Amino acid sequence: MDKTVEVLDTTLRDGAQGEGIAFSVQDKLAVVRSLDELGVAWIEAGNPGSNPKDADFFALAESLKLEQAKLCAFGPTKKPGGKAADDPQLQSLLAANTPGVVIFGKSWDLHVAEVLRVSLEENLAMIGETIAFLVSRGKNVFFDAEHFFDGWKANAGYAQAAVQTAREAGAFRIVLCDTNGGSFPKEITAGVEAAAACLAGKETAGALPPFLLGIHTHNDAGLAAASSIAAVEAGCRHVQGTLVGFGERCGNTCLAALLPSLCLKMGFSCLPRGKLERISEITRRVAEIANVSVPGDMPYVGSSAFSHKGGMHSDGVLKVRRSFEHIDPSLVGNNRHLLMSEVGGRSAIAERIKKIDPAITREHPVVAQLAKKLKTMEASGWAFEGADASFELLVRRELGRYKPLFTILAYRVMSEHPTGASIACSHAWAKVWVDGQDEIAAAEGDGPVNALDGALRRALLRFYPELEHVRLTDYKVRVIDGRAATAAKVRVLIESTDGPNSWTTLGVSEDIIDASRAALVDSIEFKLIGDTERKFKTYL
Amino acid sequence: MDKTVEVLDTTLRDGAQGEGIAFSVQDKLAVVRSLDELGVAWIEAGNPGSNPKDADFFALAESLKLEQAKLCAFGPTKKPGGKAADDPQLQSLLAANTPGVVIFGKSWDLHVAEVLRVSLEENLAMIGETIAFLVSRGKNVFFDAEHFFDGWKANAGYAQAAVQTAREAGAFRIVLCDTNGGSFPKEITAGVEAAAACLAGKETAGALPPFLLGIHTHNDAGLAAASSIAAVEAGCRHVQGTLVGFGERCGNTCLAALLPSLCLKMGFSCLPRGKLERISEITRRVAEIANVSVPGDMPYVGSSAFSHKGGMHSDGVLKVRRSFEHIDPSLVGNNRHLLMSEVGGRSAIAERIKKIDPAITREHPVVAQLAKKLKTMEASGWAFEGADASFELLVRRELGRYKPLFTILAYRVMSEHPTGASIACSHAWAKVWVDGQDEIAAAEGDGPVNALDGALRRALLRFYPELEHVRLTDYKVRVIDGRAATAAKVRVLIESTDGPNSWTTLGVSEDIIDASRAALVDSIEFKLIGDTERKFKTYL
Repeated sequence: MDKTVEVLDTTLRDGAQGEGIAFSVQDKLAVVRSLDELGVAWIEAGNPGSNPKDADFFALAESLKLEQAKLCAFGPTKKPGGKAADDPQLQSLLAANTPGVVIFGKSWDLHVAEVLRVSLEENLAMIGETIAFLVSRGKNVFFDAEHFFDGWKANAGYAQAAVQTAREAGAFRIVLCDTNGGSFPKEITAGVEAAAACLAGKETAGALPPFLLGIHTHNDAGLAAASSIAAVEAGCRHVQGTLVGFGERCGNTCLAALLPSLCLKMGFSCLPRGKLERISEITRRVAEIANVSVPGDMPYVGSSAFSHKGGMHSDGVLKVRRSFEHIDPSLVGNNRHLLMSEVGGRSAIAERIKKIDPAITREHPVVAQLAKKLKTMEASGWAFEGADASFELLVRRELGRYKPLFTILAYRVMSEHPTGASIACSHAWAKVWVDGQDEIAAAEGDGPVNALDGALRRALLRFYPELEHVRLTDYKVRVIDGRAATAAKVRVLIESTDGPNSWTTLGVSEDIIDASRAALVDSIEFKLIGDTERKFKTYL
Repeated sequence: MDKTVEVLDTTLRDGAQGEGIAFSVQDKLAVVRSLDELGVAWIEAGNPGSNPKDADFFALAESLKLEQAKLCAFGPTKKPGGKAADDPQLQSLLAANTPGVVIFGKSWDLHVAEVLRVSLEENLAMIGETIAFLVSRGKNVFFDAEHFFDGWKANAGYAQAAVQTAREAGAFRIVLCDTNGGSFPKEITAGVEAAAACLAGKETAGALPPFLLGIHTHNDAGLAAASSIAAVEAGCRHVQGTLVGFGERCGNTCLAALLPSLCLKMGFSCLPRGKLERISEITRRVAEIANVSVPGDMPYVGSSAFSHKGGMHSDGVLKVRRSFEHIDPSLVGNNRHLLMSEVGGRSAIAERIKKIDPAITREHPVVAQLAKKLKTMEASGWAFEGADASFELLVRRELGRYKPLFTILAYRVMSEHPTGASIACSHAWAKVWVDGQDEIAAAEGDGPVNALDGALRRALLRFYPELEHVRLTDYKVRVIDGRAATAAKVRVLIESTDGPNSWTTLGVSEDIIDASRAALVDSIEFKLIGDTERKFKTYL
């Protein structure tokens, strides 16, 4: 059995049909470079006949120096009636000047009759002539048999005739598509086996070229990965999908979630050696280019994919890694996280304390104290899960290894309406005290928290000039108990950076200003303590 | 073959172990009511022995009048050595006073030896004694065989002994868990068949009670739905999951994505008649309670699940619905969207306007105007999906059927620190103008928005005494673009009630006070317009 599966990524074509996904030409070039770095074999990069931006892209793409991947342009079979050589869509596919061309054609009789509105014979002629023409121009032609599985259920003979026609015309790959995403894996198995049997019957030796059959599925029933796996088990050696899972409706097969299963659990080779370890990083990068986040719970590559929150899970994973992990996260370049939470246990707390003081074990009384304190704090809305820096400060306070580096003596934040031309809607002043000296400063801002942040940092700058380089990079508010309406408690998470490092802090209060103040103070203290320790190595 | 599958939802237990998910006691009660409305058979609602908040919840839950669902408390087998009757965890399970108790126990020898660190015999005794004790106290005992599939692969005899022990001790359900989420569907099939065979051998008649075997899977390889389907095909008639898919790491089986497949494609009954049509709505509500959004691409219930963006897809779906839809979206209470298409956009808007003025059709110029306006507003962060009242006001403004009932002349909101004993941290005044008269009022509050709300309503009360009965019941803040840190835009959603009616309004601004002000003004106007119309029936 051949143990290689060839990968085609269609992020830039089917993925771009996902709701909310739009790529500029520059974005498309950046995605191609990223996918090449990952090492996919083929990149379906656009539909030059339907989209002028895609035509521009293909012109620019010719100058890309790709190491691994080859490009495909995508388009429909020729129009009914006319000659392939005169078809403007096929001309634009040739103009894209790519080694591969993907042609989609109908294999479901319903679509031929009611959507395309041509005779069944005419559709077969369109498939055959289109492919033969492009093959004669030296292209590797991929035939996407649209709706193959629905077609096969409705009229098996016609679906088979469509793929046989493509094969006879010289198709390089024949890709069976579950275009509507509603088929079950066992229907995929049966459809692939039927296609393989009818195509093998046409070969003189009865054996198909190894990579001839491909699979393309959608996730409308949450079964895209399972269907692709079933197809590979049934003999497909070419898989199509989009790295992050973007695509029409519920998305295409998510390659980041599929390839690790094929490689690590089924023993196939899908990417060049050493590349699977980069799939988490490159998936996040492609998502960033599309301006969306990778969902935390995405299989294999999500930030929560190896996060352990339940106390018994954390405890188990510390004793035996594989007790609660189906694979080693480093195989896909991901990381393990033990979350601090009320359902987490002492083992997770001890593991985190070790980073501050390696001498403290799970049996140290401070671990039990902290576990108790965490439970109480979490019952009143604190959640340290995403706020490592605030958790570290909490541990230091509990260990007695903390002294405040400044005190806020007073602040006032005002938001008013109407405003004159001379002042923003929100403005604030803050007065701080550091080592016997005080300072007051003011700032205006886009909202009360933005104004308070500005005033506070200006006042502290006199004492701690290193704060000049600190910027807030993210700010999140969550209402903890919405039922009390505007008097509800809010949880504020602030992410800060000083360039090389970034850290997250937390504040909880019924007052959003007060919650933000707590998170801002933690952010500043975390920075200052870190700097001090690096300078004197004596604080702890 | 029995065509019913029993559903257990564990949003409040396994779901609460998902990263970023935290429920207050009030949230938990709201989730139970929603799941009961959907009609799930069982709700696993918490672990009272590990979490004091869960114990509080169970005390309050006794007074809920549930129509359909029954509650379960969740906990571990008794501690090694001691007697079941003396085990504090089992006592807290009994104290929860629920008809069902879910006990999780080890069926993988690795876990017994290296995580639990007891002998293989001791673990079987813990399982048997725990279940027998709870059965003797009148409980329906669900046995969650943790890591059953990994255990069965490692030591099939021991995994089978664990489930046989549970069965002999009187377990009501035996639930085979793929706790690490790494098994493939065909391994699930084989494991379920093996468990069924060994349990049937122990029955005198050789046949198992119909609902005895259950399945519980996780999504670490993106295969949770496929694995649950495989288990049902192999004979399981009890499925566990979480409605929105929340859960440890990559989440549990998402019931919103699984149940439609079981009902619509496999012909099983999982929910009472008429309830599947409400699954989109209730899934979004449960997600809202957890303050997360349902991913747009979630199978069946996501907002993009029936969105057609590719031109050929939109065209096809307008010709023959099933050409690009695997099911009719109304079967799961979802809607079709035709994106980027004037036709699709307008039809949807006309549908909504009909509720305000049935005489306005799709061709009325106001529909095109609104479509254009919505595109601009949505591009800058407004999202009317959850804010029907604000959308209705927008339509009235566009129709020229709106006059403002009051004007805010000025307001000022202050938050300060430190505060004296005589005033809260946040306080506000607001001055309003109604029909040539003005009024000013002040209020203090738990935060700046709470204070502004109080001042505004007090000032208006003189003109509109009916506002006395209006209360805000929910307040949510979502940061739209976190990257700009505290200067990011925020979207505020406010839910209000006057007793018989409740409605939701929206505000968007870079300033949380300003966004809240917009949502408060809409809330008050919506109430006043509704009352006026009821009184005079002439306004529209």
